[in-house]
Amino acid sequence: MARNDERRRLLADAAIGVLAAEGARGLTHRAVDRAAGVPLGTASNYFASRDALIAGLVARIGERLGPTDDDLEIRAGQPAGPALFADYVRDIVRRLSTERDVTLALFELRLESTRRPEIAAVLHEWQRTAFAADIAFNEAAGLPGGRREIALFHYALDGLVLDRLTTPIDPGTSTDEIVDALVAGLLPRT
Amino acid sequence: MARNDERRRLLADAAIGVLAAEGARGLTHRAVDRAAGVPLGTASNYFASRDALIAGLVARIGERLGPTDDDLEIRAGQPAGPALFADYVRDIVRRLSTERDVTLALFELRLESTRRPEIAAVLHEWQRTAFAADIAFNEAAGLPGGRREIALFHYALDGLVLDRLTTPIDPGTSTDEIVDALVAGLLPRT
Repeated sequence: MARNDERRRLLADAAIGVLAAEGARGLTHRAVDRAAGVPLGTASNYFASRDALIAGLVARIGERLGPTDDDLEIRAGQPAGPALFADYVRDIVRRLSTERDVTLALFELRLESTRRPEIAAVLHEWQRTAFAADIAFNEAAGLPGGRREIALFHYALDGLVLDRLTTPIDPGTSTDEIVDALVAGLLPRT
Repeated sequence: MARNDERRRLLADAAIGVLAAEGARGLTHRAVDRAAGVPLGTASNYFASRDALIAGLVARIGERLGPTDDDLEIRAGQPAGPALFADYVRDIVRRLSTERDVTLALFELRLESTRRPEIAAVLHEWQRTAFAADIAFNEAAGLPGGRREIALFHYALDGLVLDRLTTPIDPGTSTDEIVDALVAGLLPRT
């Protein structure tokens, strides 16, 4: 079972790499086998259909973009407020930027979802769950901002990271400065 | 000459449609000919290489996303301030949302630019020029906000429109409400 999980993870990671490198159209079981360096047919054994492969890689995207236990523990002891919120946001942006392939794969899937309703369904469900979890986390931690503000940060950070990973319009301004300006502007005024 | 320009526009529009419908990998001269309903070989006559085709369609994206003379005239007589700025932003979001294929094509190109330096060069040059023009327009019109704020709006609006055109995380909130919240938060405090 543990070996099985490890294999699935390896294949899902390879699928993420294929998506980032080739776009959604390049994502086939064969391309995943090749990228993972496993015998042809392996990806089909673990993910019987393209939909199953997409579901597996969306789940893996969630794992790779989520905070580590260390990330959470470091911040759990801090006083709740705009400074801690900013720290969480910086941590999210750091992960999205470092996990470049994962973030690009996610953008590819969002565009592909306009063409394939079955991808839209899987992706939308995952996004809605993650968004609800973000709101619940923020509230439980006593952080400023609710549903409205968290949605605004989703939009702004998606656009920022897309810009920074592709063709940045304003490379002279550091990502940290931008995050600070977003936090200063978009949290509710106290 | 006029006929030539019309033909180029027709082909560039077809290329935008192909990009939106098929992704960057589907963009070939042959696919453009088919989408435009012209004899095979026509797109190659007007755009000798894939780079020329990309340059032509980026220029056409700029035309289709730019404000019309009417859009500009309506607003030129209004007093400069946050309300007028908000009106311009709503107009931009309206165009990006209505010109769905153009906006999706632009996102496709941004992702493709990570894989193809020749696309990155064309796209980046166009984006930098448009960004500089946005800043100059804002200043000439006496509107609030400068380089920093205009970059923030680019990020937030890109993320917002990507979300709204694909799998919206918070469909219960109207786009106008979101724009109002961004304008209230991201313009300099007076």
